[in-house]
Amino acid sequence: MASNSSGGGSSDRQRIAQQRLSRIAGHLQRPADGSSAIVAAECKAQGSRADVPGEEKTVPRRRQEVMKWNGWGYSDSRFFFNKKGQAEFTGKRYRLSGLIIPGLKDWFEGTFGASLQHKTPATPILNSSAVQPPNLNEAFVEEVKSAGIPFSHDAEDRVFRAHGHCLHEIFALREGKFGRVPDLVVWPNCHNDVVKIVELACKHNVCLIPYGGGTSVSSALECPPEETRSIVSLDTSQMNRILWIDEKNLTAHVEAGIVGQDLERLLNESGYCTGHEPDSMEFSSLGGWVATRASGMKKNIYGNIEDLVVHVRMVTPQGVIEKGCQGPRMSTGPDVHHFIMGSEGTLGVVTEVTMKIRPMPEYQKYGSVVFPNFEQGVACLREVAKERCAPASIRLMDNEQFKFGHALKPQVSSIFTSFLDGLKKFYITKFKGFDPNRLCVATLLFEGDREKVLQHEKQVYDIAAKFGGLAAGEDNGQRGYMLTFVIAYLRDLGMDYYVIGESFETSVPWDRVLDICRNVKARIIRECKDKGVQFSPLSTCRVTQTYDAGACVYFYFAFNYRGLSDPVHVYEQVEHAAREEILANGGSLSHHHGVGKLRKEWMRETVSKVGMGMLKSVKDYVDPNNIFGNRNLL
Amino acid sequence: MASNSSGGGSSDRQRIAQQRLSRIAGHLQRPADGSSAIVAAECKAQGSRADVPGEEKTVPRRRQEVMKWNGWGYSDSRFFFNKKGQAEFTGKRYRLSGLIIPGLKDWFEGTFGASLQHKTPATPILNSSAVQPPNLNEAFVEEVKSAGIPFSHDAEDRVFRAHGHCLHEIFALREGKFGRVPDLVVWPNCHNDVVKIVELACKHNVCLIPYGGGTSVSSALECPPEETRSIVSLDTSQMNRILWIDEKNLTAHVEAGIVGQDLERLLNESGYCTGHEPDSMEFSSLGGWVATRASGMKKNIYGNIEDLVVHVRMVTPQGVIEKGCQGPRMSTGPDVHHFIMGSEGTLGVVTEVTMKIRPMPEYQKYGSVVFPNFEQGVACLREVAKERCAPASIRLMDNEQFKFGHALKPQVSSIFTSFLDGLKKFYITKFKGFDPNRLCVATLLFEGDREKVLQHEKQVYDIAAKFGGLAAGEDNGQRGYMLTFVIAYLRDLGMDYYVIGESFETSVPWDRVLDICRNVKARIIRECKDKGVQFSPLSTCRVTQTYDAGACVYFYFAFNYRGLSDPVHVYEQVEHAAREEILANGGSLSHHHGVGKLRKEWMRETVSKVGMGMLKSVKDYVDPNNIFGNRNLL
Repeated sequence: MASNSSGGGSSDRQRIAQQRLSRIAGHLQRPADGSSAIVAAECKAQGSRADVPGEEKTVPRRRQEVMKWNGWGYSDSRFFFNKKGQAEFTGKRYRLSGLIIPGLKDWFEGTFGASLQHKTPATPILNSSAVQPPNLNEAFVEEVKSAGIPFSHDAEDRVFRAHGHCLHEIFALREGKFGRVPDLVVWPNCHNDVVKIVELACKHNVCLIPYGGGTSVSSALECPPEETRSIVSLDTSQMNRILWIDEKNLTAHVEAGIVGQDLERLLNESGYCTGHEPDSMEFSSLGGWVATRASGMKKNIYGNIEDLVVHVRMVTPQGVIEKGCQGPRMSTGPDVHHFIMGSEGTLGVVTEVTMKIRPMPEYQKYGSVVFPNFEQGVACLREVAKERCAPASIRLMDNEQFKFGHALKPQVSSIFTSFLDGLKKFYITKFKGFDPNRLCVATLLFEGDREKVLQHEKQVYDIAAKFGGLAAGEDNGQRGYMLTFVIAYLRDLGMDYYVIGESFETSVPWDRVLDICRNVKARIIRECKDKGVQFSPLSTCRVTQTYDAGACVYFYFAFNYRGLSDPVHVYEQVEHAAREEILANGGSLSHHHGVGKLRKEWMRETVSKVGMGMLKSVKDYVDPNNIFGNRNLL
Repeated sequence: MASNSSGGGSSDRQRIAQQRLSRIAGHLQRPADGSSAIVAAECKAQGSRADVPGEEKTVPRRRQEVMKWNGWGYSDSRFFFNKKGQAEFTGKRYRLSGLIIPGLKDWFEGTFGASLQHKTPATPILNSSAVQPPNLNEAFVEEVKSAGIPFSHDAEDRVFRAHGHCLHEIFALREGKFGRVPDLVVWPNCHNDVVKIVELACKHNVCLIPYGGGTSVSSALECPPEETRSIVSLDTSQMNRILWIDEKNLTAHVEAGIVGQDLERLLNESGYCTGHEPDSMEFSSLGGWVATRASGMKKNIYGNIEDLVVHVRMVTPQGVIEKGCQGPRMSTGPDVHHFIMGSEGTLGVVTEVTMKIRPMPEYQKYGSVVFPNFEQGVACLREVAKERCAPASIRLMDNEQFKFGHALKPQVSSIFTSFLDGLKKFYITKFKGFDPNRLCVATLLFEGDREKVLQHEKQVYDIAAKFGGLAAGEDNGQRGYMLTFVIAYLRDLGMDYYVIGESFETSVPWDRVLDICRNVKARIIRECKDKGVQFSPLSTCRVTQTYDAGACVYFYFAFNYRGLSDPVHVYEQVEHAAREEILANGGSLSHHHGVGKLRKEWMRETVSKVGMGMLKSVKDYVDPNNIFGNRNLL
């Protein structure tokens, strides 16, 4: 059935292409020799199977060669406390790399009641013999081999793809514990390879779990423990080419395994960008963005994934789904792109995407504004949204996060710079009367035409002034955004010293923002106390995106679990209560992280019983045998 | 089943509301008397059943009292040729009303080879006895009556709702011919009435066809002739209240039967607008916009319907579908709003919508630009799109439409104004060397903050100048937009004199715009010749919306059918060929008119076999007995 459909899909396209070309041919002058055959030749990129020799893939097949097997990001980059008790960040990849962060220790110990004497190191090496032997479907493996598709059932490769980055997943890995892991990993090189793999999976009844960047924080990648069939991790990382850039239409057609940093880097070489910059962009993939309805930092200019996508191809057990044209906007029934976006790996594998691209901005400018309190800051962001003059990015952090950000300041070599810092601090607190325990900071990023940026900047700062906001310089802004990429490494540091934590997010109408921030943070603190947490938790938030009708609010929650027998269970109870609180206060189930398995229980409340039925009916049609069995969403 | 589901839906909401309130109550200070019960009371608007006495509904139940039964729009407004052979427009509703249009006759006769001597008047009165007696489901009617819901099986009411405004539909009516018509018309007053009607329809197995503005041009409203059950037209026009305006979140919660002109008028009273202005806005309804993925003239500022909608309620045979919150943007699986939008009446009835509203613009300014030729005009629009500086509206018409617009100029009373016109013409043609048979015009509308509008205007005219464009004044722009609302009345005039025609549209990537315009217009002319049309047709287009990745192109096609035995059939063949040509050239099946029954045959090519299967699976789940049996889309 699958093979007919896939084959049918391809010959369908061939037939339609041929029809179209013959119609267009009617307009062309016929060549003198009477030959008027126009053939619909298959695109070169389709045919090419060979890896380009010598071309380094950013994401190697054996990811564990560059990335941590039990924590976030690159192996060569991590926080640690040196002999002097100062925090350092290793490696050479980040602006923070090789620098000393003198204030982190005091902040860490003070905030969590932690001590550098109380250590909880991770299991350093993956013990392969602790991993279940693979449950291979031999017939499937044979056919994959014959098809020339690379594969592995090596324990390290399988463990690497058995998880995302939820707390419980990383905690377990650090303990050297493994649940159900994939039995096989396959690396398709192009769309046609994926068609073949899906065909074979249907034929032999194996469970396929697509794997892009592996950055899920919704337990989406967890292998269902009840799955008895062979589980195959379909790793898209080698399917990462930009097939073409269309400068006339400002689009690019890209294979879905490409990761954000590569997509931008490659487009930049031609003077373009997508501008899609989720915090996970170093590792997350285009296919993953489509599957999870990703949002990017600069969505105010470039849009979220649903605004960026012009065309998508997804391979399903029923065949390939794709629209028949690249029109910018259509009314052709319910938009099937929206059946694909958000499907979280339950319906098929996204293989190729046409995305909008933009010329790279001429000019970029960071900024920051200090507000006397969070309420004023939110009111300012609401006004900026109402006037529809938001910069590329504008984020407001609460007082806790301001202090957190302050603690992450690298040691400055210049006496002058720290003198300036001191001056600023004096000015803001003593002279302007801002209470250091109530003030909060908004970070801003403007980009575009230089003149327009400066005009725009003035407009935003004028609005900020109406709400008691004080411009606090580019440095603070730039640092705020730079820290975005290293924050995830901090959790691993925390977990070395009994501190566990997570971020979670929501979207909410404007008039609910303050209540949600206050109530959720208060609820977290109450629940921690109730559940016996010995130390006050970190419970903090920021308004991280603005929209016409509301905002995205991002929470950090972390605590010192020393003295608890089952810290992960306590964590999960508190997180659950926090989500109940969010929903009660009018917030959504998720702005961009998605549902996965972590938030399934609230799906009915979120989309209604009829909505659930619709989603289920699509799943039952597209994938009746649950080949795409990650069991997300429903 | 349906009654359980609907009842279940309502008690679901009650239960969830109660849960949420009790959670929030945890944060409130308890009153001294210890009473802490917070009750989830049903919204007042829900309970209210009575019509407000004396409140005029813009759309009366008996629509034929104000609107034509066999043509477009208001009965009191029509074009006609007076004794002197000058065109006039009757009534008092429009700017054009009561004015003489001296140039129209010559243009009409010249363009179509028509003659005012050759008349084909419409059947003036509806012959009720020519209408089939209603096929009533007596049990259904009884229960509707007991529920207190107004209904009618009067022939006039039924015929009125048996059609949209496709050419073949109006042509038939003018001949006094009727196909299958609804057997009963019902007028729900609110969401709960709709729930009751759908429940009863499922119980008694009647076919429900939702009826909003009746402006469909996709044969969506046509009653399927093979339908043997009783067909009930569910007219939403009396369900048209703004339930609340939320100034904090800039949203309004509105009943879906409201028509565009009322929605804007009522919001304007509070200083707001939605800014959604489809050409049909005098008559089309909010529910219809949602069901067909409508687009509005000023989408560059306000967005299309998918950008405007924050929350939707739709009543289906399985129950009510609606999301659980009003967050501005979410990642909670595939977006179920996109299963509703574009469903074209096949899944249920949209009853209430939360839409974004904006403060009314401070300032509005029209404009126009003359280009030496269409190619330059398109290149200019493409550049404006690339720089992302499009005005609220920018439209480029081809030379034919420019001449058409010119022919619609009302007689000017002022000698000075016609002197100015003459001067402009001289300047443009003789002085600047524009060829009157190649030049074309773009009309523009700016709105917003006055200072910004003037800046914006300068930016756009500067770009236009790079492409040889010459500013041609506000009047031409304003007139272009004003004509938008009277164009539909012109077809009725044409049909009085052997001329039939239609508009159709597409969306297409930028690099295909010129080819599509040229090829489709040429194809129309060729096909007309092939099919024996005796006179050259009008075959004209305009670029009517710009997007990042392409544009919307709108075609007018009309011809003199004198001498043809089956003019509608010839028309349909040419339209079919035009759509094939559009698709072959990379255009979409529709930008905003939708699919209905008219374009079903191309759905598979449009969304692929798997996409069709997804849509069908949703339909089969939501409406297994095809209660919503208009047979659109699939």
